[in-house]
Amino acid sequence: MKPTTIQVELGDRSYPIRIGEAWIDGLGVALGEAGIGPSSLLVTDESVGPIWADRVAAGIRGGGLAVESIQIASGERAKSLESVRSILDFALERRCDRTTAIVALGGGVVGDVAGFAAAILLRGVPLVQVPTTLLAMVDASVGGKTGVNHPMGKNLIGAFKQPDLVAVDLAFLETLSEAEYRSGLAEVVKYGAIADARFFEFIEANAKALLQRKPEPLARAVARSCEIKAQVVAADELESGLRAILNFGHTFAHAFEATAGFGSIRHGEAVAMGMMAACRSSRPPVKSIDGWPP
Amino acid sequence: MKPTTIQVELGDRSYPIRIGEAWIDGLGVALGEAGIGPSSLLVTDESVGPIWADRVAAGIRGGGLAVESIQIASGERAKSLESVRSILDFALERRCDRTTAIVALGGGVVGDVAGFAAAILLRGVPLVQVPTTLLAMVDASVGGKTGVNHPMGKNLIGAFKQPDLVAVDLAFLETLSEAEYRSGLAEVVKYGAIADARFFEFIEANAKALLQRKPEPLARAVARSCEIKAQVVAADELESGLRAILNFGHTFAHAFEATAGFGSIRHGEAVAMGMMAACRSSRPPVKSIDGWPP
Repeated sequence: MKPTTIQVELGDRSYPIRIGEAWIDGLGVALGEAGIGPSSLLVTDESVGPIWADRVAAGIRGGGLAVESIQIASGERAKSLESVRSILDFALERRCDRTTAIVALGGGVVGDVAGFAAAILLRGVPLVQVPTTLLAMVDASVGGKTGVNHPMGKNLIGAFKQPDLVAVDLAFLETLSEAEYRSGLAEVVKYGAIADARFFEFIEANAKALLQRKPEPLARAVARSCEIKAQVVAADELESGLRAILNFGHTFAHAFEATAGFGSIRHGEAVAMGMMAACRSSRPPVKSIDGWPP
Repeated sequence: MKPTTIQVELGDRSYPIRIGEAWIDGLGVALGEAGIGPSSLLVTDESVGPIWADRVAAGIRGGGLAVESIQIASGERAKSLESVRSILDFALERRCDRTTAIVALGGGVVGDVAGFAAAILLRGVPLVQVPTTLLAMVDASVGGKTGVNHPMGKNLIGAFKQPDLVAVDLAFLETLSEAEYRSGLAEVVKYGAIADARFFEFIEANAKALLQRKPEPLARAVARSCEIKAQVVAADELESGLRAILNFGHTFAHAFEATAGFGSIRHGEAVAMGMMAACRSSRPPVKSIDGWPP
């Protein structure tokens, strides 16, 4: 399966999303082609690092780039200004400069924290997102929202920072737990529901193959999800209107998460239930006329 | 003397610089006209706060806006991530939202720290710069560079954040020390030297009146300096080329500051000497032909 590339059109902040299967050993070459280098800082977390960091670092070096690695803690608690500070300290102590790219290898938290660090280090350095969860592939790595939590609430400190490249390798999904994987699929379903009826039908028709993580339908599902999010973001980069469509199911989802206690159900699980709840509450409270609503 | 307005053209990040004498009591009205409100956070420091904070806060309230005030320490040591954190904590604990404007009242340090806080609070809130030193009026408040120092060096963490309004009131200069004032004049001279021979001649012709802080020539000097910087920034917002012209005299200046020990001579003083050194070292080492070089 050859990698495909989707271009996110944001004027002089446009960037490519490269999607393929088992191509990450060539990441360094892709970085070079995107004009990124000659140095990089690989940021990952305690969950992903032990499995993938060495291989991705080797892939980066294979393109002739220097790479240093730093690991932050895993999970929502790591999404803090302190984590950002540790990345900044690490980068500055190693005399990074404005061309040093931050490569974020991990799920949404790593992408948010490392992305925010890239936004404010030397007033902005290049950023490469390498999402390792399905949710991060189709959601967190596209759109440019980065940031951390504050004792007063989630995502209260941050920046809009578009990456220079998003590198999606479906091989990362092989080590993902079933629950994490299904949680990501919920967002895939969401893109069909909000923007593309044919894509929704494709998901329905290939539900079993998608659950089995078959590369072909999965690649199409990820690519089309990224395309849809990219189009919405291109039309509304700073979230002043249309971008709200991406929040389908999220009002209920946030209520479910808050009620269950943050962290006790997965975001994707809450979104799946939230979309069902939103659809159900959208049905007009009238009697059926000619069999509609069903 | 009626206030004049200079527009900085940066596409959808364009903003006005309003320059006048003793008009700051009407700041709230100007904020309303710029679409800023209904709430604001006044950030100042220990030097400027006791003299001006109450009056400026009253001016803001006069336009119908709510205002809370926070004071950070004075001087280069306050230019830290910790100061930014204290502003973020203060704002978030008071339940600020995306419309809450940060009003930076002070010299370059306050502008840098409060500006950076405005860049990352809720991924960006409105920012109003109210510079109180001549140097901040003609330099720091125009251009969008914000940031703080790091143990590894100056200005290593930050963001480009354009303000929504720059409010220049020459009355603030009345309480400025002679050394601070002359330090700012050095940057005014710089604008003449790099971009406008007629303006340079105006400065020469009005040197005495400018040193006496006479409002009319001072207003023209500040306005023309802001215009020149605004034009350079508009042509090169993210500092990739032309903007380097603003660094005239700064290579030597940084050497002077580093040699003397940072803080032991003023930045403007170092720039004044730096421009002289740069001019002298630019003279070609050839014999005079027809009396040139002189």
